[in-house]
Amino acid sequence: MSISIAVDAMGGDHGVSVTVPASLKALSKFSDISIVLVGQQALIEKELAKHQYDASRIKVHHAEQVVEMDELPSKALRNKRQSSMRLALNLVKDDEANACVSAGNTGALMAVSKFVLKTLPGIDRPAICTSMPTMKGHVHVLDLGANVGADGESLAQFAIMGSVLAKAVDNNANPRVGLLNIGEEEIKGHQRIKDANEILKNSKINYIGYVEGDEIYKGDVDIVSCDGFDGNVALKASEGVAKMISFYLKEAFNKNLLTKLVALISYPVLKAFKEKVDPRRYNGASFLGLRKIVIKSHGGADAFSFYHAIAEARLEVIKNVPDLIAHEVKALLDTQSVVEKASQANTEQQA
Amino acid sequence: MSISIAVDAMGGDHGVSVTVPASLKALSKFSDISIVLVGQQALIEKELAKHQYDASRIKVHHAEQVVEMDELPSKALRNKRQSSMRLALNLVKDDEANACVSAGNTGALMAVSKFVLKTLPGIDRPAICTSMPTMKGHVHVLDLGANVGADGESLAQFAIMGSVLAKAVDNNANPRVGLLNIGEEEIKGHQRIKDANEILKNSKINYIGYVEGDEIYKGDVDIVSCDGFDGNVALKASEGVAKMISFYLKEAFNKNLLTKLVALISYPVLKAFKEKVDPRRYNGASFLGLRKIVIKSHGGADAFSFYHAIAEARLEVIKNVPDLIAHEVKALLDTQSVVEKASQANTEQQA
Repeated sequence: MSISIAVDAMGGDHGVSVTVPASLKALSKFSDISIVLVGQQALIEKELAKHQYDASRIKVHHAEQVVEMDELPSKALRNKRQSSMRLALNLVKDDEANACVSAGNTGALMAVSKFVLKTLPGIDRPAICTSMPTMKGHVHVLDLGANVGADGESLAQFAIMGSVLAKAVDNNANPRVGLLNIGEEEIKGHQRIKDANEILKNSKINYIGYVEGDEIYKGDVDIVSCDGFDGNVALKASEGVAKMISFYLKEAFNKNLLTKLVALISYPVLKAFKEKVDPRRYNGASFLGLRKIVIKSHGGADAFSFYHAIAEARLEVIKNVPDLIAHEVKALLDTQSVVEKASQANTEQQA
Repeated sequence: MSISIAVDAMGGDHGVSVTVPASLKALSKFSDISIVLVGQQALIEKELAKHQYDASRIKVHHAEQVVEMDELPSKALRNKRQSSMRLALNLVKDDEANACVSAGNTGALMAVSKFVLKTLPGIDRPAICTSMPTMKGHVHVLDLGANVGADGESLAQFAIMGSVLAKAVDNNANPRVGLLNIGEEEIKGHQRIKDANEILKNSKINYIGYVEGDEIYKGDVDIVSCDGFDGNVALKASEGVAKMISFYLKEAFNKNLLTKLVALISYPVLKAFKEKVDPRRYNGASFLGLRKIVIKSHGGADAFSFYHAIAEARLEVIKNVPDLIAHEVKALLDTQSVVEKASQANTEQQA
């Protein structure tokens, strides 16, 4: 199997200085992939010249324009038809690449991906899904901001899509799926969450019910489905706390000469600890619900981090995630229509 | 000034074994307070007998019933009129105590507080406000779960109430207030957040605009106003991440004999670090918008942690927080009614 990955070389805060070395690292790591670097040819070639690489597995596809990190999605869609982001997605649409990886503007990448690649049958809204470390492994959380005010059906679709992803990429036969909610009994959650709860209780997935924010990290749930606003708040708040803790840990070890000496002695322990929670290893959010594979890297990703996003793209190609999702969502829709017909028949009988 | 604090001695996961020692610690720390321990007399006296204390500043008020931690708020309200929680709040209503502190069931405490103490004029819904550490100090976040689906006006009231609290308890003359939102430009936030944004732009408080989840912890905002669902998700997710990080840090230092030795050497540094982010120091959430002071302690609080909730109650009594809030909310309502009248006059003129 030969997998071709289109990399938006211009996206992210650092552009080619990150995307090119990360692509070369991926090529050396995975013998089954080739990469198309999409972006300003001169810049990419200048960066490539700094490295040793197998030229037969890398191509440069020139793109005149760049989508800015703060550009409005609607403007990027309308005015940036020659951007590296758009052309990378076009390659995927035209089957010249199997997946696209970009560290560009999230809103624009989602808007252009939806427009160019389209959603799978039955999916109204694609979702952004990322994985995060837990006390026992990792968890997939979606949506992280593509949808604000998703209804119950969308939340149920997110749950199914996440379940398919976990089955495929984690080789987890029966992933546990939860719905993000809060614990206050009588005011529990929004109507949409209750609606999704009803749909999921009748689905074939391993639905375990409501989970609260802290349970995301306990390791007892494999997929957490939530509205994009809530997911974004949970993810960003988590990032914020992690950064604050790391800040105070550094501060304590940097306080004076003695503490610096302790830091030196503790270095291997602190290193082992940091590797466990290193967010760079979890870089690469999947846009689920599209007909093809798109992976969004964090804008501030370094080469190690961007490499992980490419690795995620490769894995989803091998597992053929979009087809698996299409299959499961069709099954869900069929079940729902059976349930609806049954309930309709029931109502008619009673009438 | 003599401040009387009614402590729901039965509330929380640990009951009198936490609330009694914490109360005695508060008495020895603050010479200006006295405490009424409300709950099962025999149990309280048994616990008191284990300690040395000044009997002139502590009273026991017997309560037959206890509100369970998982009891529905409506049931607690209806069936537990002789509970320690209810009687402690009655003491505050009857001016026999200046504030109530409870580690009991949050939903029940909010429902009973609203019923017994009532909200301030102009306030539809009280909010739960807690403080959390940041990279530069601390931040107040509200609401944390009392309101799901708060409208723009409520979010604006939360902002004002938080601002009043920060001014009073932090001696911060001009606290910076933000509205929790997500960063995706075109789908930015719910309508209620945009409505609150408009109200706050025209208010007298130091409103700095939208903040994202990670900005809660950066130290550049003093109050974050949000819907109860969002605040609860942000807080719980933050707790979850912090616990996970602490879990992996312990694991790294406990790995083998050598790392345990390193832990021993690092002990003072790790201790200094932990003190900085110790959630126990931030225990004690304020129910803002009520006519009197109610402080909710974490249910799992230990004595050190519960003591901090009592200290918060004392401070809010000294600063007279409810009156300050009443004053500011009235000013906001007056401004709004002026704005509405002006806009109405304008519309009529145009018509």
